[in-house]
Amino acid sequence: MTLRLGTMQDWPLNVMRLVDHAEREHGQNEVVSAWADGSTTRTNWGTIVAKARQTAQALEAAGVKPGDRVATLAMNHDRHLTSWYGAIGMGGVIHTINPRLFPEQLAYIGNHAEDKILFYDAMMAPLVEALKQHWTTIEKYIVYDPPEGWEGDQSFEDWIGGHDGDYQWVDADERDPVGLCYTSGTTGNPKGVIYEHRSMVIHALAGIQPDCFNLSERSVALPIVPMFHANAWGMPFAAPMTGCKMVLSADYSAPRMVKLFREEKVTHSAGVPTIWVDMIAHIEKTGEDLGPLQNVTIGGSAAPRAMIKWFRARDIQVGHAWGMTELSPLGTIGGKPAEWDAMSDEEQVDYTARQGRVPFGIEMRIIGDDGQELPRDGKSSGNLEVRGAWVVDRYFKADAPATDKDGWFDTGDVACLHPDGSMQITDRSKDVIKSGGEWISSIELENAAIGIDGVHEAACIGIFHPKWDERPLLVCVREDGSQVSADDIIAGLKGQVAKWWIPDAVEFVDELPHTATGKLSKKTLREQFSDYSFDGVESMTGRD
Amino acid sequence: MTLRLGTMQDWPLNVMRLVDHAEREHGQNEVVSAWADGSTTRTNWGTIVAKARQTAQALEAAGVKPGDRVATLAMNHDRHLTSWYGAIGMGGVIHTINPRLFPEQLAYIGNHAEDKILFYDAMMAPLVEALKQHWTTIEKYIVYDPPEGWEGDQSFEDWIGGHDGDYQWVDADERDPVGLCYTSGTTGNPKGVIYEHRSMVIHALAGIQPDCFNLSERSVALPIVPMFHANAWGMPFAAPMTGCKMVLSADYSAPRMVKLFREEKVTHSAGVPTIWVDMIAHIEKTGEDLGPLQNVTIGGSAAPRAMIKWFRARDIQVGHAWGMTELSPLGTIGGKPAEWDAMSDEEQVDYTARQGRVPFGIEMRIIGDDGQELPRDGKSSGNLEVRGAWVVDRYFKADAPATDKDGWFDTGDVACLHPDGSMQITDRSKDVIKSGGEWISSIELENAAIGIDGVHEAACIGIFHPKWDERPLLVCVREDGSQVSADDIIAGLKGQVAKWWIPDAVEFVDELPHTATGKLSKKTLREQFSDYSFDGVESMTGRD
Repeated sequence: MTLRLGTMQDWPLNVMRLVDHAEREHGQNEVVSAWADGSTTRTNWGTIVAKARQTAQALEAAGVKPGDRVATLAMNHDRHLTSWYGAIGMGGVIHTINPRLFPEQLAYIGNHAEDKILFYDAMMAPLVEALKQHWTTIEKYIVYDPPEGWEGDQSFEDWIGGHDGDYQWVDADERDPVGLCYTSGTTGNPKGVIYEHRSMVIHALAGIQPDCFNLSERSVALPIVPMFHANAWGMPFAAPMTGCKMVLSADYSAPRMVKLFREEKVTHSAGVPTIWVDMIAHIEKTGEDLGPLQNVTIGGSAAPRAMIKWFRARDIQVGHAWGMTELSPLGTIGGKPAEWDAMSDEEQVDYTARQGRVPFGIEMRIIGDDGQELPRDGKSSGNLEVRGAWVVDRYFKADAPATDKDGWFDTGDVACLHPDGSMQITDRSKDVIKSGGEWISSIELENAAIGIDGVHEAACIGIFHPKWDERPLLVCVREDGSQVSADDIIAGLKGQVAKWWIPDAVEFVDELPHTATGKLSKKTLREQFSDYSFDGVESMTGRD
Repeated sequence: MTLRLGTMQDWPLNVMRLVDHAEREHGQNEVVSAWADGSTTRTNWGTIVAKARQTAQALEAAGVKPGDRVATLAMNHDRHLTSWYGAIGMGGVIHTINPRLFPEQLAYIGNHAEDKILFYDAMMAPLVEALKQHWTTIEKYIVYDPPEGWEGDQSFEDWIGGHDGDYQWVDADERDPVGLCYTSGTTGNPKGVIYEHRSMVIHALAGIQPDCFNLSERSVALPIVPMFHANAWGMPFAAPMTGCKMVLSADYSAPRMVKLFREEKVTHSAGVPTIWVDMIAHIEKTGEDLGPLQNVTIGGSAAPRAMIKWFRARDIQVGHAWGMTELSPLGTIGGKPAEWDAMSDEEQVDYTARQGRVPFGIEMRIIGDDGQELPRDGKSSGNLEVRGAWVVDRYFKADAPATDKDGWFDTGDVACLHPDGSMQITDRSKDVIKSGGEWISSIELENAAIGIDGVHEAACIGIFHPKWDERPLLVCVREDGSQVSADDIIAGLKGQVAKWWIPDAVEFVDELPHTATGKLSKKTLREQFSDYSFDGVESMTGRD
């Protein structure tokens, strides 16, 4: 059905309209780059967009065509941002490569994406040089920040400097691609997610609202998330939409971050828990001032309650966000609920410790083992599925959709939904321990174990059990000098988790396996313990 | 060009997804109705959406088809809102009729819209009864709130009560129509503006952002703007998007409003200046508390500086909004600029006294008499043109577009744009006084005159002048008991406006003509003074 009685205007949701808006309405507002060498440079939205036009001309002159992939291997800075807008403006697809992946993955990704050109930071030069022989489609290499005496690839400023900037953006369809980001799964080759003009603009509109990032023109946003990590959580599109000042940093060390917070008067920041662990330790040691920081978003993995309380004690609004590359990446974010003021301090912390709730644009449900939707009762846990305006439908070059026939995308997370709409991740679906027809959350056990004195890191996996199918094994790394025992840990877990969740055994290792991006690799751990058996281990649980 | 390398999901921007979101994620949050008889009733988003499904069934049973117009003649309350969602959900187009129009206009509008059904408030019954004989297409009349002993048309609750609510919304295209609102121009017949699913959803997404209405789930929104007045400025779509509590009132009297602010803990409100004039007078008299009110948006016409200062003194964020029916209605809104904290108190008031700036989604420019775009220098004044995602392209049933070939819509306002992006209305284009090739702002002269002791109301029009083409005549209404003279007024204007703007004459009248919607009717005033001549009037200006 299409009825056109009278109409509103055709006004495509095009990323470049957002970029033009920043230039036209907020051109003088600053974009600050903090470089790895300790220096800081300043530009503004107007200059960035003007240089993006030069970049678009340079890309066209280099033979890049609409739809071609333009790769970057770089940290956060204004030239990286400029090249994004320039590439998208000439119809290109900006492909942000994650330098933390293994070299074989990097080679695979560049070739699978059929990248035509690569922009990179000088600090990545050794990696780039090693990979050049493996990348088969890249025709041109441009370096963002050649140091004095550089004799390698052409510099970005020189390369775009020859163009006059008299350029009109390509007239793209709102469903045309603008970005490409690969997810590094723990199995198989990385998969590419294609972002579109429309999805990116709606994602940014949703992202700036008070219950999400809460960005206004007066904000000063410093994402402590790499631009290659799901577009720095969308900040490079959300910030110009509001015209706020943005601070980009290539250096995530705590002293540098705190200095930037103070000197650049940062109000809004976002990052993974490890960033904040370092930051808090630094401030606790030095007593430094955080400046006017008022809004911190924590994502990537769960923030400990102590971290949440630390920010609360300083009157800094703290919230979880949960998302993934396939979600552009925002899935849920921790805007306060309507009943916030009536909640006790502990209830507020409980709420904040969950992963937040969906903004308009995302639908979410949990599905049990029988394929039925589970209630939002704060107790039932099931596979977390989403669909929405900025959720993947089909991976890059995939033959089949990434969703079921009703458009639901299985996130691979296990979660419960609370009556107030907030979502709580309880596990990854491949990590959940299935014991006697019930699910045990490995994440909850690990979080409880890490809270016990002497435990540095913990991982919980399911081990075959003849009666219960699986029972939990807890694998721990002791803190330096600690003598904590298996009995101590079991005693510490009691009362924190259900009795039948208590692991059947605790083993100690010197270190746990991690993926290239720093996540705990349960897959490797399961391989290491593939021959493990509870035979001969004195069971410590009440279930057996 | 359409490239589909991989894709994001198809997720239409459909108003009913927004309604579903409110039901699913914020179902328990309240919607309060304050009725004209002084009573208050409470429901919530979940119940409203459930009843909207019953409404959709009742409309279908009554023979209403997708694309048909469903009219309302009502103030703000939850049943009115329910019928909106129900009508849109079954594919209908909700046509909000403004009861303040003249009866001939109301008859014209109903027939031009070809309304199939009319929902109305019992208080409108005399108007409805008088118009029934003139409306040729309305087949059914439903009354929202029949009083005890009512013997007229069927009541809304009875009518929907026979349906079970087991209903799936019509699968609409995002460009399908959802709403129709007529603008009452001062010349010719009213013109209808058709709103679409997509335009309404994007308008709501833009409207909730911190620099616009700043709505979150914790907000309590009370629009003091009728739902027939450009959709209560979009609140009935913005509020459910955030799930905030909404308060709807059929009674705009100051004592009632202040009571609602306090009792319902209203945080966000919006209305025209006259609403706030009454409210401020009431509070100054009674000393009543405003409750937790924190955000006031003023639109429709300019807020006096004293009003802005009154809110500022109470730490209530106050901002102008400017818009029109053709803009859904938001054009500009007064979010604080980046440099706010560095501005002096007077500079902040100056900024707030302007009409605000565009959110992403609206483009704006000013055009001089020669058709050329004028600079954003805070001095040049020209015809204000807009285009964007929620701007009219073609009026209902119109043969030609409402825009020029590049999509620009001429607002009929004259404005200047400041370097910080803020817009300042200086006049209506048909009211501007063209004197010696330069423009004199009638609005600025009127605002200056109203600030002079003894002047109750003032209107300025251009009168033919043999040398200068036009010169200003100021027509004033004295305050009760005031003896203010023409000389006093001229003396008061000196120093406030450019010397050559000083009116050539001041005349006094007992009252000024107004339109049905309460706006000053310059057209009628010009007719009243069509034979006026400056001959024999001693000129008071420096130009002659």
